[in-house]
Amino acid sequence: MRAERFFLGVDLGGTKIRTALVDGTGRIVARDYRETRAEEGPDAGLERILAAADAVLVQAGLSRSHIAAVGIGSPGPLDIERGVIVSPPNLPGWGAFPLRQRVQDALGITTVLENDANAAALGEHRFGAGRGAKHMIYVVAGTGIGGGLILNGELYRGVSGMAGEIGHTTLLPGGPLCGCGNRGCLEALAAGPAIARAARERIAAGMSTTMTELALSDPRRITARLVAEAAAQGDEIARQVLSEAMDYLGLGIANLVNILNPELIVIGGGLANIGEALLGPVRRAIEQHAFFSLAQTVRVVKAELGDDAGALGAAAVAMTLPA
Amino acid sequence: MRAERFFLGVDLGGTKIRTALVDGTGRIVARDYRETRAEEGPDAGLERILAAADAVLVQAGLSRSHIAAVGIGSPGPLDIERGVIVSPPNLPGWGAFPLRQRVQDALGITTVLENDANAAALGEHRFGAGRGAKHMIYVVAGTGIGGGLILNGELYRGVSGMAGEIGHTTLLPGGPLCGCGNRGCLEALAAGPAIARAARERIAAGMSTTMTELALSDPRRITARLVAEAAAQGDEIARQVLSEAMDYLGLGIANLVNILNPELIVIGGGLANIGEALLGPVRRAIEQHAFFSLAQTVRVVKAELGDDAGALGAAAVAMTLPA
Repeated sequence: MRAERFFLGVDLGGTKIRTALVDGTGRIVARDYRETRAEEGPDAGLERILAAADAVLVQAGLSRSHIAAVGIGSPGPLDIERGVIVSPPNLPGWGAFPLRQRVQDALGITTVLENDANAAALGEHRFGAGRGAKHMIYVVAGTGIGGGLILNGELYRGVSGMAGEIGHTTLLPGGPLCGCGNRGCLEALAAGPAIARAARERIAAGMSTTMTELALSDPRRITARLVAEAAAQGDEIARQVLSEAMDYLGLGIANLVNILNPELIVIGGGLANIGEALLGPVRRAIEQHAFFSLAQTVRVVKAELGDDAGALGAAAVAMTLPA
Repeated sequence: MRAERFFLGVDLGGTKIRTALVDGTGRIVARDYRETRAEEGPDAGLERILAAADAVLVQAGLSRSHIAAVGIGSPGPLDIERGVIVSPPNLPGWGAFPLRQRVQDALGITTVLENDANAAALGEHRFGAGRGAKHMIYVVAGTGIGGGLILNGELYRGVSGMAGEIGHTTLLPGGPLCGCGNRGCLEALAAGPAIARAARERIAAGMSTTMTELALSDPRRITARLVAEAAAQGDEIARQVLSEAMDYLGLGIANLVNILNPELIVIGGGLANIGEALLGPVRRAIEQHAFFSLAQTVRVVKAELGDDAGALGAAAVAMTLPA
């Protein structure tokens, strides 16, 4: 029997469940990937999580007794104390499901539930781009925009575990409607769907752009990824659309810099794959909008953990539990 | 000889120096108030601080040996580590003055320098409206807008002691020019001078308002205080001006709520004297713009320490030093 301690990290998303079995140094010893099938309800979802746990144990030749703790990263809002998913827009029908307790009872292993962006922030801090940073802000930009704050070397959760909702800070009063019901949120200005919408609006206004051909003249095929491709190929309209969104992302991050005076910003999520076309504008916005001495002391980098961030982060949350 | 330990708190402002001798429970045993006369330079200012220290000791019948530590709250930017005022707009000519060391050498007592808003935040947390709060945001709104963050029960400073610059978060891209060089900062939208400017603009545009008579037809007499008076007396234009500013203040604070999930917002500074005409709109903006569960868990109250906040806060910073 191996005396080493392992941790199970589960990244529960609206469409997929990514699971990783991780050793104490953050090395992934086995991975599992399966669909969430959220529409089948939380009991079926629980079974899929348990099956994933067994799958990674089989891969690694280990048993449940080798797992010291389980961490689950989940879309919010959550009731962290009670370990319950409250009313998740991405997991319809899962509201009030006592996920933490159910997993803990089924596996017989101490289990913790954490907001997915918080978990990924902790993962990047422990094992990724944020190693060694005292004050780090993790921004995940993709279909939505979220964040996690590492302050004084630890995950900062706020009074009810909801800190880091940076996607819903208002940057343009009266601006575009956000999924949260508010207007002009960072997410409504710079997340993937906002980029796609802005591109569609320009096409509908008759602007000439290669995005029309790339989308085979079907506006539904316009995605942030397609906009980024067109921009990389030199399409001027796509460049404008992307640039405006990245300027807002940078502005939102500059505000965080003024508030929190961090040393490091780590940007993950699908939009981070745009690379310099994202990091450049964010850095410029910080220089332009944040206080000089604050802008000077902060670095902006891409996340390192990629698709593993969520599961590795959930495992990192499990590692913070008392042994 | 009294065995009790006392702390000296100095609130160094652009126009006045407020000094308090404080016991370990935060009770002020003696106060001094004198003008800064910043234009006479930092050496003359140092002499005035030392004279204030002696004055409060004489009042209390104590000697320097009774003072355990000295805290100085000063307008920034500061180099906290070195205890140096860097290039203070409110203290012209004081740049690079090693204030902490000079006071420490002159008094022979351990001395600490802290940003004035941070010091006031700590003061309200230890001895004022924020007692017992785990996560509290202090907002000072007056000639400028600043802030201090109490996270996990302690003052959060960030990587270079500059955290809490909430007055310079951008709320209206391309909006009015701020003293910091940026546009659309909270301070440029909601601080006293912004309120006065908005009132003057409406008067210049020919709008009928009692502010014209209150100011004796002299636009230079229009101040935020005058606008608040006119609004309280029912003047519609003054009400609009004040309401717009308070909406922006509330929006800026709602953003902080989304980012930091605090349990308490404490609002101090001259504008806080407006009372419910400030607190009401701030609470409404939080309800409107912050996430529902975050808005539900936060209270918004007026600061309690008034003119003593700075000196008492500086003393509170001194109390955090190791004995």
